[in-house]
Amino acid sequence: MKCLLGNKSKCIVILSGGMDSATTLAYAVRKHGSENTIALTFDYGQRHLKEMQAAATLCAHYKVKQIVFRVFLEAIGGSALTDKAIQVPAFKTDEDAWKQTHVALTYVPFRNTIFCAIAVAYSEALGCKYIYTGFNYIDSGGYPDTRPEYLDALNRLIKLGSRDKPTVIAPLITMTKKEIVQFGETLGVPWRLTWSCYQGKERPCGKCNACIQRRKGFEQANVVDPLEPRNR
Amino acid sequence: MKCLLGNKSKCIVILSGGMDSATTLAYAVRKHGSENTIALTFDYGQRHLKEMQAAATLCAHYKVKQIVFRVFLEAIGGSALTDKAIQVPAFKTDEDAWKQTHVALTYVPFRNTIFCAIAVAYSEALGCKYIYTGFNYIDSGGYPDTRPEYLDALNRLIKLGSRDKPTVIAPLITMTKKEIVQFGETLGVPWRLTWSCYQGKERPCGKCNACIQRRKGFEQANVVDPLEPRNR
Repeated sequence: MKCLLGNKSKCIVILSGGMDSATTLAYAVRKHGSENTIALTFDYGQRHLKEMQAAATLCAHYKVKQIVFRVFLEAIGGSALTDKAIQVPAFKTDEDAWKQTHVALTYVPFRNTIFCAIAVAYSEALGCKYIYTGFNYIDSGGYPDTRPEYLDALNRLIKLGSRDKPTVIAPLITMTKKEIVQFGETLGVPWRLTWSCYQGKERPCGKCNACIQRRKGFEQANVVDPLEPRNR
Repeated sequence: MKCLLGNKSKCIVILSGGMDSATTLAYAVRKHGSENTIALTFDYGQRHLKEMQAAATLCAHYKVKQIVFRVFLEAIGGSALTDKAIQVPAFKTDEDAWKQTHVALTYVPFRNTIFCAIAVAYSEALGCKYIYTGFNYIDSGGYPDTRPEYLDALNRLIKLGSRDKPTVIAPLITMTKKEIVQFGETLGVPWRLTWSCYQGKERPCGKCNACIQRRKGFEQANVVDPLEPRNR
């Protein structure tokens, strides 16, 4: 995709393969052009590879270069997303999903900071001015490392502690899932290529927090999710 | 070593094996006791293993548990310390070593933040309240990620972005190398087990910035460095 919004500087997009980072990628490509956009995907010992496969497919779709960086967060553990001995919680209702137990179990210790720090290192090595992430606080389950004040503190740290001072941009940070779906629609995000479910089964489980938030977003935006069983 | 200063909480010490981190380890062990101290050493694709061997020997000396974490910073590159194609600069005088070229060549992109972020993750997984680092701004060559204002920004980020909010402590941050040697002497740091030289030869090269700063510290403190050729 050619650069439509006029920013020709190089950027890195942290791409997991979920709906938030896919929307962020679409936005960055629109802004910087696919030739100036590098996707950075972390292979961090997550429970399954579905999300990483989605990330690779999205990079092919958007014709952007992808870097896959292996970081052994499973050696650190402490989360249901990196330790198979801890079960991903399943919920019946949206309200249940907001209970404290969810954050306690699927928070990956300081993951977003580790990812952003590595993205800063790549930015300095590759000459990128901007780092895009899909951080989203409103409907993400209340993880501490997705809040606007966290983002401000992160950018302050980068300004003080790096040589080239790239900026982290989180275009979705204050959007609801409904607004993300609407925004993604205007960008033409290929939702069928994304993967949100914390489980790595053939189809989304529909019961984990990621599935619940995704369903809420699509329903409220009145958009058909091609991954929902009834739509496949 | 038994805990002498009365803080029984668990801590992590980021240990490279150099004189600064060895002194920091000695301090943390004195404060928390060896049974409450965990050394975290990064195998990050550095040019040589001498420093990592020194770290392992120091852990044996202090009877602390060591975690070695592999992170592929050599895949990112951009530094003489992780890319063998870039030569480590050699200097004739101390003044030469302070030239801008030094920082440009041996700064490892955002390394200290990556290391601290991983240390925070371990702290959360292992229940450690404190992270000790050997950051030292005065005589370290002016890297941006060793300054007191950087440390403040890092702790602010950790407070906002982590679940358990461990604190990063850098006891040497405003000390000169002379003061570090003096402080290390009071703690009984076994200097012979440390390694500072950026090169990985059998003996320190004497010409890289790390060798130059080390020599200056020992000379000014009037302490014999067992690694100096004339003292071996």
